[in-house]
Amino acid sequence: MEGIKIAVDAMGGDHAPDAIVEGVVNYLKDDKDVCLVLVGKKRLIKKELKKNNFNDLDEIRIIDATEAVSMREHFLSYWKKRERTSIKMALDLIKRNEAHAMVSAGNTGAVMAIAKNSLGTLKNIDRPALALMIPTLKGNSLIVDVGANVDSKPRNLVQFALMGKVYLENIHGVNNPKIALMSVGEEEAKGNELTKTTYNILKSLDINFIGNIEGRDAYIGEADLIVTDGFTGNVILKVAEGVVNVTASMLKREVMSNLLSKIGFFFLKSSFKRLMKKFDYTEYGGALLLGVNGIVIIGHGNSNAKAVKNAIALSKKFITENVLDKISNEIEKYQKTFKELKHV
Amino acid sequence: MEGIKIAVDAMGGDHAPDAIVEGVVNYLKDDKDVCLVLVGKKRLIKKELKKNNFNDLDEIRIIDATEAVSMREHFLSYWKKRERTSIKMALDLIKRNEAHAMVSAGNTGAVMAIAKNSLGTLKNIDRPALALMIPTLKGNSLIVDVGANVDSKPRNLVQFALMGKVYLENIHGVNNPKIALMSVGEEEAKGNELTKTTYNILKSLDINFIGNIEGRDAYIGEADLIVTDGFTGNVILKVAEGVVNVTASMLKREVMSNLLSKIGFFFLKSSFKRLMKKFDYTEYGGALLLGVNGIVIIGHGNSNAKAVKNAIALSKKFITENVLDKISNEIEKYQKTFKELKHV
Repeated sequence: MEGIKIAVDAMGGDHAPDAIVEGVVNYLKDDKDVCLVLVGKKRLIKKELKKNNFNDLDEIRIIDATEAVSMREHFLSYWKKRERTSIKMALDLIKRNEAHAMVSAGNTGAVMAIAKNSLGTLKNIDRPALALMIPTLKGNSLIVDVGANVDSKPRNLVQFALMGKVYLENIHGVNNPKIALMSVGEEEAKGNELTKTTYNILKSLDINFIGNIEGRDAYIGEADLIVTDGFTGNVILKVAEGVVNVTASMLKREVMSNLLSKIGFFFLKSSFKRLMKKFDYTEYGGALLLGVNGIVIIGHGNSNAKAVKNAIALSKKFITENVLDKISNEIEKYQKTFKELKHV
Repeated sequence: MEGIKIAVDAMGGDHAPDAIVEGVVNYLKDDKDVCLVLVGKKRLIKKELKKNNFNDLDEIRIIDATEAVSMREHFLSYWKKRERTSIKMALDLIKRNEAHAMVSAGNTGAVMAIAKNSLGTLKNIDRPALALMIPTLKGNSLIVDVGANVDSKPRNLVQFALMGKVYLENIHGVNNPKIALMSVGEEEAKGNELTKTTYNILKSLDINFIGNIEGRDAYIGEADLIVTDGFTGNVILKVAEGVVNVTASMLKREVMSNLLSKIGFFFLKSSFKRLMKKFDYTEYGGALLLGVNGIVIIGHGNSNAKAVKNAIALSKKFITENVLDKISNEIEKYQKTFKELKHV
């Protein structure tokens, strides 16, 4: 295929298809070197393109999908119709070499399940994981897994660590990233059965394993990569999001309670804006589904046009950096380890 | 025994014994109706009392303990010497009816392990849990467990729910508290094996179970009581603490970056102070170790004198509200349920 092609699930997310189409159009204003394939209900997509005064169909292709998976739709409901969904049809483009990556802000569970089933996992990888960058005091850290595997085994966590390492080295240029295991105390003996076994394996590998990390230190930025099971990782993300929002709301309430504070806030506004931007998921582009045989980016369900645009930019980086092959090669090195861990 | 007696571990915490003794002395300035028993190295305690100009030994008793457990001390290390530690000797006072409660800001793992071994658990309770109030947009919510059981079974979580219910009804006057299960989605089908099984049991009980709650909504205050395993609960607490601190640090950095912001901050200072107070653990007095046969309060390891004072006040409330008996009675009602859950 010529040039970079990225499939975009036009029907995924709370604000689909309008925010998705707007994000796609905005992306193409800055970068005309890619072809974006919008997958979804053609009539709706065309309407949105028109709204955005977009007529240049060289850079956009539309593929009609009759079904969409809604944000809270249950597995049993979407699995039956999956073949006709925008998610599956977008993923099929990767399989047929008609796209290099797929971006969706849709139902995370559905994208993960359909992607795993349709693309399969990379050799030596048991289960895919969601990898997301979080803001920290020192910059950013990558968390793997933030929701793909709610019941993980030690060998899954070890694979997450190795895949995350390749991600950081290639996408963020972090040399020999500091890898930490999320636990309830820094000491080796602290943790649950899962983390204690995982600790011992990570310690034995030729990686920069810095030991356990506590929630307190995660947002300081002590580690480049934080490894955890999907249940804990998902809870962490949502608690952090909740705390930031609640703190902002409480502060607003405090500020509005008296005139002096209101004056103060007026002067501080730009500082606040810059701060909130750090915690703004729309800046980060979404999470990468590590371990499937294709580049799949899952954006926040609440994605606006900016988030969609950033997700497309992120997916392009994965393509140009050839991250998939690099992960496969790195994982290959540890083939022996994974064989030993088969039942762990 | 006459009057209320509370045992205080003088050697527990990052700032022991000075902050502990200062907290005890400050408490007695407001409330002379209790007798506080300081347990620890007598010579050090006496020195601190002198520093605080405290000579009235009617309200304070000292019990000499030759050993202290340090904050990061390992199980194998403290278990051997436990009989001579301030933790064990303070708990012994409860056992001998010489104290109605015990307060420690020491090594959480050590206090929990020694308390469980020494006091035993309440009838029908398999494992104790740590219960802590967290600040929310709507007020406060109780989280159980925040670190006692890193590997929990469904029946443990059910017991946590019932004990937490009694706590809220009696200490905070919450009528039929809304009980939620921490998970990765609101829908019943979302979660890991542990939460999915627990969901089904909680649903079947005659309690105000409102279903799953996500981290995002926990700090909004959608539930009065959040039930979770000790690993997840502990991670939640520490992530929240980390995010609040990091947000404050980032804001400070932003504020100091230009003059207008500095001026703004000057006017906003009091608002900030009130806000930070809400997230200040020293206001909350510490966590209750639910399910052991005695009232045991575990304060933050970083407790200052104010936190110690508030922990003593909280323990007094548990005593006067007779919370221990009420928990036993409530649990008794569910005896049949627990028998059925023996292997769950």
